[in-house]
Amino acid sequence: MKLKVITHNPGKVREYQEALGGYGIEMEHVNREYDEVQTAYLEEVVDKGLKSMYAEGLRDFMIDDSGLFVDALKGFPGVYSAYGQKTIGNEGILKLMEGVDDRAAVFKCCIGCRIGDETVIVTGKCPGVILDSARGDGGFGYDPIFSPDGEHSFAEIPVEEKNVISHRGVATRMLVEELRNRGFI
Amino acid sequence: MKLKVITHNPGKVREYQEALGGYGIEMEHVNREYDEVQTAYLEEVVDKGLKSMYAEGLRDFMIDDSGLFVDALKGFPGVYSAYGQKTIGNEGILKLMEGVDDRAAVFKCCIGCRIGDETVIVTGKCPGVILDSARGDGGFGYDPIFSPDGEHSFAEIPVEEKNVISHRGVATRMLVEELRNRGFI
Repeated sequence: MKLKVITHNPGKVREYQEALGGYGIEMEHVNREYDEVQTAYLEEVVDKGLKSMYAEGLRDFMIDDSGLFVDALKGFPGVYSAYGQKTIGNEGILKLMEGVDDRAAVFKCCIGCRIGDETVIVTGKCPGVILDSARGDGGFGYDPIFSPDGEHSFAEIPVEEKNVISHRGVATRMLVEELRNRGFI
Repeated sequence: MKLKVITHNPGKVREYQEALGGYGIEMEHVNREYDEVQTAYLEEVVDKGLKSMYAEGLRDFMIDDSGLFVDALKGFPGVYSAYGQKTIGNEGILKLMEGVDDRAAVFKCCIGCRIGDETVIVTGKCPGVILDSARGDGGFGYDPIFSPDGEHSFAEIPVEEKNVISHRGVATRMLVEELRNRGFI
């Protein structure tokens, strides 16, 4: 089975190919945009994205959306994490969290597929905390200020290890499980 | 001419009726939602909203979208002002602006109309500054922390006076001007 991955990021396509290739799924990169709606839920962004591209005539494709949800900030930056990163950045999140005791946060990744007439949507989560300061040179985005274990930031954890516990890693395994349950693989 | 105002807020419909009623335009309240896209520009939210509702079959209608754009925060919260207000709130903006010398900000209101086959989009602006603390009991949203004159917050200025200088007031007058230029009124 061929599955189109709708993204500007070729790295994502390679990651999905590695995860799903063993199940006979071949990823095809489709480098384009789609309108993401404003909502507090990644699942709604993904669901509406799938519907609008299906309406355009696209078949057998997948999209994903991720975000960092900070408990003490009522889920902010959440669905708008990319915009938050571009504007206030990690420095802004650290400033908002100054003097805040509850450091809990969760990284979420929602993957949606439309295969034939069926829709599969899964959300992987990686719980953790917001650190007091940025740490590490790896990763990207909020990785330096997020720690899954309270000690090391995502930017300090080796990428192979991060891929196992990360929200995207969890979501990808959930996707494989769901595709298997439905008999697609 | 009848013009549908797409909003959940009956107060907006009354405001537009007051501003446009004198030109023979009768406002009709349509209490519904539409998908707002994720983008850094109010104009794109409005333009795509107009197109999607026109595609649904809606005719002769208007929508608007507003936001507070803070210079030192690279335009944040901008298009996502409603979400920013619900999550980090005025307290969050004040915290992000602690120790920041450049206090410049601008409130923007973008109004879009689709009348017949024509599209009119105008953006009204009200420049000002972010205050050091919240002031006043009037207004809503970011009004207590925004000042157009550097002294009084939008929440301290009488509503009649605010309506003259506010981003929505400016946008509404620009809309009247544009409708007149195009011969609609």
